[in-house]
Amino acid sequence: MFKKILIANRGEIAMRVIRTCKEMGIKTVAVYSTADKDSLHVRFADEAVCIGPAPSNESYLKMANIIAAAEITNADAIHPGYGFLSENAKFSKICQEHDIKFIGASAEMIDRMGDKASAKATMKAAGVPTIPGSEGILDSYEETEKLADEMGYPVMLKATAGGGGKGMRAVWAKEDLKKSWDSARQEAGAAFGNDGMYMEKLIEEPRHIEIQVVGDSNGKACHLSERDCSVQRRHQKLTEETPSPFMTNELRDQMGEAAVKAAEYIKYEGAGTVEFLVDKHRNFYFMEMNTRIQVEHPITEQVVDYDLIREQILVAAGVPISGKNYYPQLHSIECRINAEDPHKDFRPSPGKITNLHIPGGHGVRVDTHVYSGYIIPPNYDSMIAKLITTAQTREEAINKMKRALDEFIIEGIKTTIPFHRQLMENPDYVAGNYTTKFMEDFEMEAS
Amino acid sequence: MFKKILIANRGEIAMRVIRTCKEMGIKTVAVYSTADKDSLHVRFADEAVCIGPAPSNESYLKMANIIAAAEITNADAIHPGYGFLSENAKFSKICQEHDIKFIGASAEMIDRMGDKASAKATMKAAGVPTIPGSEGILDSYEETEKLADEMGYPVMLKATAGGGGKGMRAVWAKEDLKKSWDSARQEAGAAFGNDGMYMEKLIEEPRHIEIQVVGDSNGKACHLSERDCSVQRRHQKLTEETPSPFMTNELRDQMGEAAVKAAEYIKYEGAGTVEFLVDKHRNFYFMEMNTRIQVEHPITEQVVDYDLIREQILVAAGVPISGKNYYPQLHSIECRINAEDPHKDFRPSPGKITNLHIPGGHGVRVDTHVYSGYIIPPNYDSMIAKLITTAQTREEAINKMKRALDEFIIEGIKTTIPFHRQLMENPDYVAGNYTTKFMEDFEMEAS
Repeated sequence: MFKKILIANRGEIAMRVIRTCKEMGIKTVAVYSTADKDSLHVRFADEAVCIGPAPSNESYLKMANIIAAAEITNADAIHPGYGFLSENAKFSKICQEHDIKFIGASAEMIDRMGDKASAKATMKAAGVPTIPGSEGILDSYEETEKLADEMGYPVMLKATAGGGGKGMRAVWAKEDLKKSWDSARQEAGAAFGNDGMYMEKLIEEPRHIEIQVVGDSNGKACHLSERDCSVQRRHQKLTEETPSPFMTNELRDQMGEAAVKAAEYIKYEGAGTVEFLVDKHRNFYFMEMNTRIQVEHPITEQVVDYDLIREQILVAAGVPISGKNYYPQLHSIECRINAEDPHKDFRPSPGKITNLHIPGGHGVRVDTHVYSGYIIPPNYDSMIAKLITTAQTREEAINKMKRALDEFIIEGIKTTIPFHRQLMENPDYVAGNYTTKFMEDFEMEAS
Repeated sequence: MFKKILIANRGEIAMRVIRTCKEMGIKTVAVYSTADKDSLHVRFADEAVCIGPAPSNESYLKMANIIAAAEITNADAIHPGYGFLSENAKFSKICQEHDIKFIGASAEMIDRMGDKASAKATMKAAGVPTIPGSEGILDSYEETEKLADEMGYPVMLKATAGGGGKGMRAVWAKEDLKKSWDSARQEAGAAFGNDGMYMEKLIEEPRHIEIQVVGDSNGKACHLSERDCSVQRRHQKLTEETPSPFMTNELRDQMGEAAVKAAEYIKYEGAGTVEFLVDKHRNFYFMEMNTRIQVEHPITEQVVDYDLIREQILVAAGVPISGKNYYPQLHSIECRINAEDPHKDFRPSPGKITNLHIPGGHGVRVDTHVYSGYIIPPNYDSMIAKLITTAQTREEAINKMKRALDEFIIEGIKTTIPFHRQLMENPDYVAGNYTTKFMEDFEMEAS
């Protein structure tokens, strides 16, 4: 087993990893930017190394500094968390070259699954249902128009290097195709330095439902059932739940089997997530595979009583998995508490937390790195806490979330708590009747 | 179902009850003393009524003020929490007379179980094993000496109105009996206005193991397995766990059956706890029955996934229980975080909390009423938080407790956190090898 793990991240996920390391008796090294010097992850790790100033490419993305920090402290493994270098093939390779275990996917796996077109081709070969669309990158506008005619509208244009909604366009009729093609390519080129595009059939009333998998070094994989992440705003998840209110036992078995097949086909090692779109007829299609821990992993932990970070560490150390699948025993919901003003188009609201009360009690879990007096730097992701409630039924989990949101006091900044309070009262949400389009029609009421 | 519940208590248990009421959609009324005006339970309840100044007998024990508060606010039930009026027969009766449901035992039940001698006689009649000893109150010293000779030393003298160790003496040899008898009676008379004494056989290597029961208005009862509360200092519990490391499945069935028999014999309604002493040979003896929710109830909730406060409310509203018993699926430990200095004989340490960080993450539950800036008044019980960890095994729950204790920052006052950190490293505790005598030999190391 590893003696010391460096956590190449910040915020709540750095805290999350430190917690499991402590429980496993593994020493930890925090790295931090100058903007994060007062962060809790710096305080709670056994050692901490400053790796540069606030802009991420001068600290949390600066591979040489992180490797140096690991070498100085004799860390024998690096946990990358999510975001930053967690799906960076070069970093995975550099870790390997320095004989430091990267607790994540291999460079080859990241490359294979990180490129959307290559991922899709792989899944198709593995026999996992994929969304009808172009075979890899589209060569020309003419080819695109021809294929769209064949598939029928609506279609979706997507940047092959895309993410977060950038370089993505829904096209509902032929006359709009050219304009969308041009603007999506331009956006993708500017954002990713890569304007390669592909096209897919647009899925009706889609739900974003993902399957958590864990694979080991023997090529064996298991699944831990689903998370419904359909409540998204501009492709950013706001709240997630498991089980999905749209799920059936039959569909769970089918999707779980497909996800395990996908993971075993590519001999996936570690914790990963196979994201699917599910249409209104309960057809499901592979969307992408995330080769890292997800923000929303705690809801799975809550309903199957399984520590996913521990499992990542064990698998990275070569411990085989049992191979059995896990099914939800309870219902769990996560609300992402962001330092954003939901009444002003979710505009970021960094600044000082002047007063804080974190909810507690039965069935309430909070993963956070903030404290009363903490100054949220403007440089990073705006998520400041994950509020997770767990109960025997969905109704109880919603009621618990309502009371926990009522109890969550964060003064000094604006947060998404008012949004979540309204969401938990929304009749469609309460009925479990929502798709990825839900937020397009959602309007905040005045507070 | 009740529309509005008044919580006749303060601190974490007031918060605890408010939480479940909110989840059930029941309005809440907080009552508070002037010393508690800035307490969270006042903030989180729907309404709050000040019932007098700090000394408890002018506020939290002042029945007329509490009944008036319930009438003013139209509360249809009162939850008494623990301590204060929770086991006060007169208060239970007054509530009934005012047509307010007392969420607790009837006056008759409290009287029957509150007097130790009468409780023991009742249990004996129900066929529950009791500790050999005097039949009720001892009439004279001569009778006491004769009975002690018959039972054989060691024996234990106890005040019939006793609690918290007052009026209690262990007597190991005949020559010490007279002195102990005199001093125990004097102490009991001063503390309770009642110097009635009884005597029992002293149990060797005793463990304090209690069984949680719930009974309904149909006379049906179930048990929710045990809690081991043997780690006590001067009869005050410091930490509790379930399952007990001393427990066997056979003993659990025997003790659970005895507890259910006891509850059904007296037609007990509500949540109650049957406390047993278990000797080194796994003989168990009825000690007392608490006709209220216990401080340590969360560990049971964690391992059987059951909300005991909700169950109290449901049963009080006449909802029948299912009747099935509950068995621990996980392991849970509670550490009571008190504002006391463990390096100075656990001397109370009230004052202002200048900085607070509450631990979170997987398997960690915190029940508390304090916040950063909160001033702990010197007037009440020193418990300021309950830290509860839950995991698949005892070893994991201990490791989780260690990391949660490391993460718990309370500045400005002294707390029992350093004690719990040492306890979690103590070889006997870690081996599960402890009795109610454990703390007699425990010495704090310098911090």
